[in-house]
Amino acid sequence: MASYLPTPRTQMHRLPVRAAYDHVTVHAILDEALVCHLGFVDAGQPFVIPTTFARVGETLYVHGAAASRTLKALGGGIPICVTVTLIDGLVYARSAFHHSMNYRSVVVFGAASEVVDADDKRSALLAFVDKVSPGRAASARPPSDKELRATTVLGVALAEVSAKVRTGGPKDDPEDMDWPVWAGHLPVSLQAAGEPVSDGTPMSLDLPTLPVALRVPAARNRAPSGATES
Amino acid sequence: MASYLPTPRTQMHRLPVRAAYDHVTVHAILDEALVCHLGFVDAGQPFVIPTTFARVGETLYVHGAAASRTLKALGGGIPICVTVTLIDGLVYARSAFHHSMNYRSVVVFGAASEVVDADDKRSALLAFVDKVSPGRAASARPPSDKELRATTVLGVALAEVSAKVRTGGPKDDPEDMDWPVWAGHLPVSLQAAGEPVSDGTPMSLDLPTLPVALRVPAARNRAPSGATES
Repeated sequence: MASYLPTPRTQMHRLPVRAAYDHVTVHAILDEALVCHLGFVDAGQPFVIPTTFARVGETLYVHGAAASRTLKALGGGIPICVTVTLIDGLVYARSAFHHSMNYRSVVVFGAASEVVDADDKRSALLAFVDKVSPGRAASARPPSDKELRATTVLGVALAEVSAKVRTGGPKDDPEDMDWPVWAGHLPVSLQAAGEPVSDGTPMSLDLPTLPVALRVPAARNRAPSGATES
Repeated sequence: MASYLPTPRTQMHRLPVRAAYDHVTVHAILDEALVCHLGFVDAGQPFVIPTTFARVGETLYVHGAAASRTLKALGGGIPICVTVTLIDGLVYARSAFHHSMNYRSVVVFGAASEVVDADDKRSALLAFVDKVSPGRAASARPPSDKELRATTVLGVALAEVSAKVRTGGPKDDPEDMDWPVWAGHLPVSLQAAGEPVSDGTPMSLDLPTLPVALRVPAARNRAPSGATES
């Protein structure tokens, strides 16, 4: 199974059992998450901005207005950290101390570079559309040359990457097992929270296919009672 | 209405219509979000770590193992950036270019300081428990002195703070309005994704009350068709 090589920055010292470096785990998290948190430094000050992203092969793309000062600074190849987090469950322990959360996260260290080739840029931008609705890039009005010029696309190679995963129920201390409070975990996920709201388009048009983010894998929500951390 | 004062770092230059600085908006986002992304700099390299947090008044608390190198570094008062993001909807435009997302986010700039007073520390830790289940701090087994010593709690003052909010449907160009693809938005939110999984506790015990994060406000999901950005 292909894996990213741990580095001093991605090697986990605390709770290494939660660490994962294989491509399958990392890609699945990146493909499900709709937003990443992009960290960079300007004059010693850290900035963390939430932004959409798309993965194509071993490259993670972000995009924004070509006029954006931030995008310009990032395209210069400064060090960045991109973090992606999915919340999978709330973990209710008997003790306040052992309350926790089930999650899957990915951290990517690297440097961004601007995608300048027009075809590459177009492909990357269409990946953003397909991510929120598989197949949609083929039916939406394609990017015009003017729109391509107005957009900056940055790519970050997936090289220094790690994932972190917590699953299962609480891990209470043996002496607390009879404490009279419900303990366990509640699976959670991002889901549609209402009917799609049409922007005046004809009823005859098909609704968008749903992204991976909104498809709740049944298996993840049928963890056996008392399941322990993997 | 009480508001945070914009600073050069929190003043929004692009799309200022999406900016909000009032306490009510900022607090609501912080109280609903279960995870924040905490950015800091170590030897010029940005790090962004996902972590749980709790707000008490005008302080945002994070916590972790006292042995954590990261927590130790942060407690020294280095500059940090804490970003919180809630995804509220997927926005499907007719053009690839105008695809977007509805969201509410908060960015906090500041420096963390360690909470050393035992009572303050205990209160902050109980706020984490009440956040994932209001009222639960009173019934869970309270933190012991040993657990308090093993935990570092850091507080960040909410002073340099801004929120960003996008709502409504797509904003397509007039010439695209007849493009034959469904356009509109799909409200999304974090929700329970299965039955609570008991860790072997008796059936007679009450299930935890749900946090704000899992209560979908009806109003947010009934935006009128064709609603425009506020």
